[in-house]
Amino acid sequence: AEVKKIAVIAGDGIGPEVVAEAEKVLKRTEELFGYRFETEHALFGGIAIDEKGTPLPQETLEVCQKADAVLLGAVGGPKWDNNPKELRPETGLLGIRKALGLFSNLRPAVVFDCLKDASTLKPEVLEGTDLMVVRELTGGIYFGEKFRRETENGQEAVDTCAYNVNEVERIVRQAFEIAQKRRKKLASVDKANVLETSRLWREVVIKVAPEYPDVELEHVLVDNCAMQLLRRPSSFDVIVTENMFGDILSDEAAMLTGSIGMLSSASLGEGSFGLYEPVHGSAPDIAGQNLANPIATILSVALMFRMTFGYADAADAIERAVSDVLNAGHRTGDIAVDKSKAIGTKAMGDLIVATM
Amino acid sequence: AEVKKIAVIAGDGIGPEVVAEAEKVLKRTEELFGYRFETEHALFGGIAIDEKGTPLPQETLEVCQKADAVLLGAVGGPKWDNNPKELRPETGLLGIRKALGLFSNLRPAVVFDCLKDASTLKPEVLEGTDLMVVRELTGGIYFGEKFRRETENGQEAVDTCAYNVNEVERIVRQAFEIAQKRRKKLASVDKANVLETSRLWREVVIKVAPEYPDVELEHVLVDNCAMQLLRRPSSFDVIVTENMFGDILSDEAAMLTGSIGMLSSASLGEGSFGLYEPVHGSAPDIAGQNLANPIATILSVALMFRMTFGYADAADAIERAVSDVLNAGHRTGDIAVDKSKAIGTKAMGDLIVATM
Ligand SMILES: CC(C)[C@H](C(=O)O)[C@@H](O)C(=O)O
Ligand SMILES: CC(C)[C@H](C(=O)O)[C@@H](O)C(=O)O
Repeated sequence: AEVKKIAVIAGDGIGPEVVAEAEKVLKRTEELFGYRFETEHALFGGIAIDEKGTPLPQETLEVCQKADAVLLGAVGGPKWDNNPKELRPETGLLGIRKALGLFSNLRPAVVFDCLKDASTLKPEVLEGTDLMVVRELTGGIYFGEKFRRETENGQEAVDTCAYNVNEVERIVRQAFEIAQKRRKKLASVDKANVLETSRLWREVVIKVAPEYPDVELEHVLVDNCAMQLLRRPSSFDVIVTENMFGDILSDEAAMLTGSIGMLSSASLGEGSFGLYEPVHGSAPDIAGQNLANPIATILSVALMFRMTFGYADAADAIERAVSDVLNAGHRTGDIAVDKSKAIGTKAMGDLIVATM
Repeated sequence: AEVKKIAVIAGDGIGPEVVAEAEKVLKRTEELFGYRFETEHALFGGIAIDEKGTPLPQETLEVCQKADAVLLGAVGGPKWDNNPKELRPETGLLGIRKALGLFSNLRPAVVFDCLKDASTLKPEVLEGTDLMVVRELTGGIYFGEKFRRETENGQEAVDTCAYNVNEVERIVRQAFEIAQKRRKKLASVDKANVLETSRLWREVVIKVAPEYPDVELEHVLVDNCAMQLLRRPSSFDVIVTENMFGDILSDEAAMLTGSIGMLSSASLGEGSFGLYEPVHGSAPDIAGQNLANPIATILSVALMFRMTFGYADAADAIERAVSDVLNAGHRTGDIAVDKSKAIGTKAMGDLIVATM
């Protein structure tokens, strides 16, 4: 088989540990399916600040640009939280998204059967919840002009939120296409009663909607969406929204499943290239102790196989292995009911590899 | 007693019905406590668009400006949803907030004992939840410059989010003061890892915090807050945040209590003047059918008594009457377990008045 190049960014906190388990899965996939992967590690985030003086070194960007896909662990931690902006891990994250043209962030929120009780929502409310937030990732207030100026009321800070028709159209079309492959329901979230960018957003959605007649479309105001996610989570299929709203709503959606340690995400651009990472953060408090749950990162590999490489067989095998291991009762500390029986990061990775 | 002037804005949908019940409570308060109120009705929102051609007629503003407090029912409805911006109820809402200088919006989210089961959250998670969102209401992206322009990528829409030090300081100080009178915990919510306005916000919070040494302060990123509200709602006391984040988080917080039909809110400026309204909307689907729950509006009157007039005795009497009526098992349709036993808007108002 053709060699697929994967840029591997372990990052900070638990990143290196969970990525190590995902790499075992890559290796096992080669043995089982004959696919071939070439991994190249690159520094990014806090560790890159420490070792290279910048969160996104030029060589890291080049490693990613040469690759077919990127696997990311996690970045950030209190150590860098008070750094000036250019020396913060998040700045690297925004930089890599922009530089790689990753305008679309897919965050599936599903409930794992064995984790139903981990949610703070009632099981009957959660029943059947399986939604996907499609978040615009390279526009809006994240990337608009930012500055300070002096006024008679003291210093003033300004952020600018801008969206053009093309930026909205490409993400909205992608969301419609994803909905067509799922339960054919799309909720477009905006604040069209207040924001000009939201009014443009809604106009574009209304303009392209007739091309997807099989998809049932609803417009939901962002404040209402924050409520409806709590009230009727299972009624959502695909949610598409702009960058800032997507940041907030995708985290809310992930948390309500109770399965946050298990959720993977994909950031995509034009073509098949993608960056895959767990939804959870770098969890500095448990880093380096073999305590982290590697499942979200391992499932990110499955997502990469499915979305970038088209290796559905291998993706299926990984997802099934994860299911089987969980059904056999194995748990890392974060998802264990009886913490005394919890297994470590490595043991969980090994079990999944052995079960594939 | 001194006559207190109350501007009464019934508004749209169920607004007139719930406001009528709140006015019965005003009348009963006069009889029981000897306080004196003079109410003046004014047109606002959709009905003002229909009758006066603008959501916020100049005379309505004058009625409010002459008053000591404003009682608002609800505004908006599908009838006006596709109107141009100047002819939308929301535009009136933003206009009245700005014109009356109501920079602070207090949205308490409490769980009513008899409604515990109405929440989609597990009762043990909800236990003890009693929080207050202090939302900045006249700044940020709601009021910044908005425009469209042509670009090579099609039309572009722009919203501007701006905050100056004074705007942040007055709301943050108010939140600290509110926390001092409650459980002495304040969560300041921002997105300081991305937004310049959030960095300014956080600087101001850090600057004034030492003047409130008895308040325990935490900074929470907005995405994380959307998660923590779900995970540990009872650990929050006061949450202070900017306009857009406050819109989203206060609705999430209200919904998780399961008591949204019961929650009141206050919008305050400098001094004692305030606008009081239920958190719920205009519910056009049930308007005019004597089905709406008037309790949130009645509790808004109690809040007005407490915060603007300093009539704690009357506020207590209203709140106790609401409790007693609920404990006696009376329910409107929205909060009834057995819908066949539900009572109407007027019956609920009458029961509360009779119990005061
Ligand atoms: C770290 C931060 C800049 C980032 C974001 O807001 O996009 C994170 O919250 C995320 O959602 O990936
Ligand atoms: C109607 C709308 C403009 C308003 C807002 O966003 O402020 C509403 O959602 C609210 O929270 O009072």
